[in-house]
Amino acid sequence: MDLPNRETIPEPALRRLPWYLAYVSALVREGVERVSSTHIAEHLNVDSSQIAKDLSYLNIKGKTRIGYDVRELEDALTHFLGFRKKHNAVVIGAGSLGAALMRDVGLERYGLNITAGFDIDPRIVGAEIAGTPVYHIDELQRVIHEMDANVAIITVPVESAQHVADLCMDAGLSGLWNFTPRRLRVREGVVIQNTSIYAHLAVMYNRLDSMK
Amino acid sequence: MDLPNRETIPEPALRRLPWYLAYVSALVREGVERVSSTHIAEHLNVDSSQIAKDLSYLNIKGKTRIGYDVRELEDALTHFLGFRKKHNAVVIGAGSLGAALMRDVGLERYGLNITAGFDIDPRIVGAEIAGTPVYHIDELQRVIHEMDANVAIITVPVESAQHVADLCMDAGLSGLWNFTPRRLRVREGVVIQNTSIYAHLAVMYNRLDSMK
Repeated sequence: MDLPNRETIPEPALRRLPWYLAYVSALVREGVERVSSTHIAEHLNVDSSQIAKDLSYLNIKGKTRIGYDVRELEDALTHFLGFRKKHNAVVIGAGSLGAALMRDVGLERYGLNITAGFDIDPRIVGAEIAGTPVYHIDELQRVIHEMDANVAIITVPVESAQHVADLCMDAGLSGLWNFTPRRLRVREGVVIQNTSIYAHLAVMYNRLDSMK
Repeated sequence: MDLPNRETIPEPALRRLPWYLAYVSALVREGVERVSSTHIAEHLNVDSSQIAKDLSYLNIKGKTRIGYDVRELEDALTHFLGFRKKHNAVVIGAGSLGAALMRDVGLERYGLNITAGFDIDPRIVGAEIAGTPVYHIDELQRVIHEMDANVAIITVPVESAQHVADLCMDAGLSGLWNFTPRRLRVREGVVIQNTSIYAHLAVMYNRLDSMK
C-alpha cells in the first residue's frame, strides 16, 4: 500500500470517513468479509460514487462485483484518520464538560490520550478525575513538556476562552480543540478545531421550528 | 420588531450567530453599551459585511457611526437562536458521554432541559444523575409523553445507534441529536443533527500532520 498524501483530501471527504469506519467496524463485528460501495451507500445515505471517490484517497480499491475487503478497509480508515497513533492531550477547564471528556473512554479509542487536566478552582486542583491528575493552570508549561502533550481541549467558561488559548499557545501547544462558542484568534502554525455543541443545538431548534 | 422568518436563514449564517452571541454577552458583562460590526469583525475574524448580512436576518439594524445596542443585540440573538424557549430532551445511553451531558449545566442555559436518561444497564437504571432519573429504555414512550419531551440525545455505543434511533422515532420524538459516528436513517418529518466529536478529531489530526 502506498503512503497516501493526507494533505490532498478535501475536508468534507475527511469528515465522511469516520461514518464509513463506524459502519465497516460494525460489519467486522458481524463477521462480514466483503462490502460494496453500493451497500455502504444504501446504509449511510451517501451517493455510492461519492464513497468510491472518498475511499480513493486511501489508496484502497474495491474489486468489481466483489467490493472491498472489510478488515482491510477498517484498517486503512483507522490508519488514515490518525486514530491508531497516540496523541497526548490536556483538558483546560476540568468542570462539567471537561471532566466528562476526561471520563469518556471513547476518545482513547480514537487515539486521544488525555494525560492531565488544568483548572483554577482550589476544590478541583490536586484531585484526580478518572485517574487523571488535575493541576493548577500555572503549571501548564511544565506539565505539558513532561507529558509530551501537543493538544489542548478547551472547556473553560466562554469569557476565559481567549485568555486560556493564549496561555496554551505560549506554552507551546500546537492543536487547540475549542468546545466554547467563542471564536478564538490563533497564531500561525497552530491548528484550531471548533466543536461548539451549542451552535449545533441552534441549528436543530431552527429546523424543528420550521417544520411546525 | 417584526417577527423574523427563521426558515430563510442559510445554515452557515445560523452557525455563526452563536459566535456573535458569545462575544456580545461578554460585552454586556463588561458594561459595554454599543458595538459596531467592524469591532465584532476584528474580534471574531469574520468579514464585517458578512456580520451585517448575518444580523439582517434578525431584523435588527445597527446605526451608522454608532453601531448596535449591545443588550438589544444579545436579546435578539438569544431569541432568534431559540435559546430562550425551553426544549425538553431525554438522553439515550447514560454512560460516559451521556451522563456528562446530563451533568452539563451549559445546555440548560441554551434552552435544553434534560428531563430523563435511558439505559439498559441494571447498574444505571433506577439511579439519578445530577438529580435526573434514569429509566429502562422500555419505558421510553410512557416517560417522554409524561415529560412532553421532543428531543433525544443519542449517546449509545455506535453499534446500537440505528436501533435506538428507530425506538425514538416510534415513540414520537421529532428531534434526534446524534453524538455517535453512525450516520442514521431517519423518517420524513424528523430532524437529525449530527455532532460527531470523533470526526472533528480526525480533521484536527489531519491538519496537525500536514503542518509537519
